Amino acid sequence: MDFSSFGKKFTADTGIQSLMDDIGNAVDSGHDMIMMGGGNPANIPAIEAILHRRLQQLTVMPNTLRQLIGQYDPPQGNKDFIEDLAMLLRKCMGWPVKRHNIALTNGSQAGFFMLFNLFAGNFDDGTQRYIQLPMAPEYIGYADTGLRQDFFTAARPQIDELDDHLFKYRIAFDDFKVNKQTGAICVSRPTNPTGNVITDVEIEQLDALAQQHRVPLIIDGAYGVPFPGIIFTEATPFWNDNTIVCLSLSKFGLPGARTGIIIASEAIIRAVSSINAIINLASGSMGAMLVGELVQNGDIINLSQTIVRPYYEDLAQFAVQTFRSAMGENYPYSIHRPEGTMFLWFWFNNIPITSQVLYERLKQRGVVVVSGHHFFPGITTSWLHQHQCIRVNYAAQSRDRVKRGLDIIADEVKQAYIAG
Amino acid sequence: MDFSSFGKKFTADTGIQSLMDDIGNAVDSGHDMIMMGGGNPANIPAIEAILHRRLQQLTVMPNTLRQLIGQYDPPQGNKDFIEDLAMLLRKCMGWPVKRHNIALTNGSQAGFFMLFNLFAGNFDDGTQRYIQLPMAPEYIGYADTGLRQDFFTAARPQIDELDDHLFKYRIAFDDFKVNKQTGAICVSRPTNPTGNVITDVEIEQLDALAQQHRVPLIIDGAYGVPFPGIIFTEATPFWNDNTIVCLSLSKFGLPGARTGIIIASEAIIRAVSSINAIINLASGSMGAMLVGELVQNGDIINLSQTIVRPYYEDLAQFAVQTFRSAMGENYPYSIHRPEGTMFLWFWFNNIPITSQVLYERLKQRGVVVVSGHHFFPGITTSWLHQHQCIRVNYAAQSRDRVKRGLDIIADEVKQAYIAG
Repeated sequence: MDFSSFGKKFTADTGIQSLMDDIGNAVDSGHDMIMMGGGNPANIPAIEAILHRRLQQLTVMPNTLRQLIGQYDPPQGNKDFIEDLAMLLRKCMGWPVKRHNIALTNGSQAGFFMLFNLFAGNFDDGTQRYIQLPMAPEYIGYADTGLRQDFFTAARPQIDELDDHLFKYRIAFDDFKVNKQTGAICVSRPTNPTGNVITDVEIEQLDALAQQHRVPLIIDGAYGVPFPGIIFTEATPFWNDNTIVCLSLSKFGLPGARTGIIIASEAIIRAVSSINAIINLASGSMGAMLVGELVQNGDIINLSQTIVRPYYEDLAQFAVQTFRSAMGENYPYSIHRPEGTMFLWFWFNNIPITSQVLYERLKQRGVVVVSGHHFFPGITTSWLHQHQCIRVNYAAQSRDRVKRGLDIIADEVKQAYIAG
Repeated sequence: MDFSSFGKKFTADTGIQSLMDDIGNAVDSGHDMIMMGGGNPANIPAIEAILHRRLQQLTVMPNTLRQLIGQYDPPQGNKDFIEDLAMLLRKCMGWPVKRHNIALTNGSQAGFFMLFNLFAGNFDDGTQRYIQLPMAPEYIGYADTGLRQDFFTAARPQIDELDDHLFKYRIAFDDFKVNKQTGAICVSRPTNPTGNVITDVEIEQLDALAQQHRVPLIIDGAYGVPFPGIIFTEATPFWNDNTIVCLSLSKFGLPGARTGIIIASEAIIRAVSSINAIINLASGSMGAMLVGELVQNGDIINLSQTIVRPYYEDLAQFAVQTFRSAMGENYPYSIHRPEGTMFLWFWFNNIPITSQVLYERLKQRGVVVVSGHHFFPGITTSWLHQHQCIRVNYAAQSRDRVKRGLDIIADEVKQAYIAG
């Protein structure tokens, strides 16, 4: 059976596909694997209780079943939810957004597929443009979304080594050049996989560059502000008419509801709605129905700040301390300063095995992580650093299991250094 | 702001987009429009009651909220649902399908976007292939899904004129040539927009052609067998390893849940899962959770046969009779024999205005239908018939409003003939 060029590209052995396969196979294997690979968020009891109560309310209110499952939303998304969210963003963030500035998609990933291919790839005049990442590591899910090969460019970051085995990536603005081939700039904030939060100053510099070159700046806020707010540093929410902010309900606790949110200029929202109509007809209604009330009364922001953020911050500290104890002081290791998300990003400088080999060894010992080399879309030159990092989810398992997983990681890393 | 070639194609003024806009604007206008345009299914009380009860059960069972919204399904879709559906199809249909033969998508439309572009468009060897429609009219939602222009080919049907102002389209096999440029054959059964059900003999002929030319035969069963079963004639469910059957939960009553189902060979399911991982990460879980039990115990087929099908069949007869009374015997009109779906397809032979003008006039009078000319993807030669038809949804409104709508349509059609 022959596949088209699109078919071949989108069925090649990709990072995201092998990640998802691994998760599936590990679960299927029947072994009690410690899953620190995927991006499944924590199940936070207080949030679950609120969503549960809301779902119960919906089942006793007249006509809500019909709204929940019995009708198509418009391609732009659930109207009430969009109105309420626009109001919330105006009131709490001071963003001048109206209902024509917001669209809903079947999850963030679907939004990025649409946005990236809208601004990059082949153009009718025969030219080609790129999605430009100010730095990599960046999100594994971006890497394969382009309708053509050769779709991303990325600059290497500046690496600031900090005390206590910590480091932080910063955008190396001297190496980051926006030019005529730039279709859009995109950065995740906080960054998946690193947990980095690019600073307000960095955001302002990116915004100035984007405006100067008349390309949009896409800020992937799947873990970001104003919700779910999984940011442990100060980070001012940022939006203007040249910025596209992408939010999600997944990390607030609803990954299965597949609700992505795009906040952008009216022209872009119109474009996204058109593409969504053709590709999906309509987006699902459930996420919007379940959190609609929390958006209406602003609780989604309060809950993000008082429950979601502290929950992950505690876990992050626990994970860092656990790993430190396990490694001791006799081996080199670095952890990206955990400023957000639910991942630790480890850098094992000069480790004599690749991160892929480390990943395989860990899987043999019942711990699934993600090899860091998947997270460098757009980096085309050889760079040893790409093969010295792993991403570890510290939130999808109980603390006991997280500790067990981190202990095993530390042990394998030590053995690798010793065998050196 | 510049859009890529993809962006330009997918944001052009398309049939499906103008249809969705119309629906949205009509609702927004504040006028009490009679909506006979879109594809929203009926809200059948008996089905709603079952789904409502099921949702209530889910809210009191432990851990189901977590399954419902709190975790990502694999890119192939909800595992339990897929297992249960495979079992049901083996048992009730005799199809030799296993779990690796089924994938779930965020609605049928998303499935078609993936399948069509997998088999047609540009190929790495520089050639180009088409999705070949055995006849048009075909579903409006297909028309814009191709990643390149010039994506469909279609043959004109044979038109059998029947008694009582009825007619039926048949595949004109003499004009329908499969060749090296055919990527896949696709047909909706029953056909949206016409309500036609291609016969078992036609299906067998298509299957033979597909196998002979080693291309897949895609059967779009969004309204079809085994569920939701909105077919009023005899039609044997058909599947084999070279056939891709696409089903949906939308017309069973869950359009807002966005659940499409693809049944195909293992290689195709693997490809669809890969594409889904990249484009969507995962599909939503709600549809699978809500009807899972009905699939497990087979009730989804029983309910389709005993409740859903008769409900629409009654409405179809009511609509046909109503329109006949309204038209009387002095004007020409033809209705495609309503064999399935929830649409009447009217053909006004020699009417002196185009269907688009008729559509505009009807909208002025508060009735929204769809002009038939949108439903001829792949027909490239000029054909008057394309501008003489309209599609009318008879299920999304109360009988009173359906009658009022049909009366207005009849009145406008008569006036057009009189004005000649």
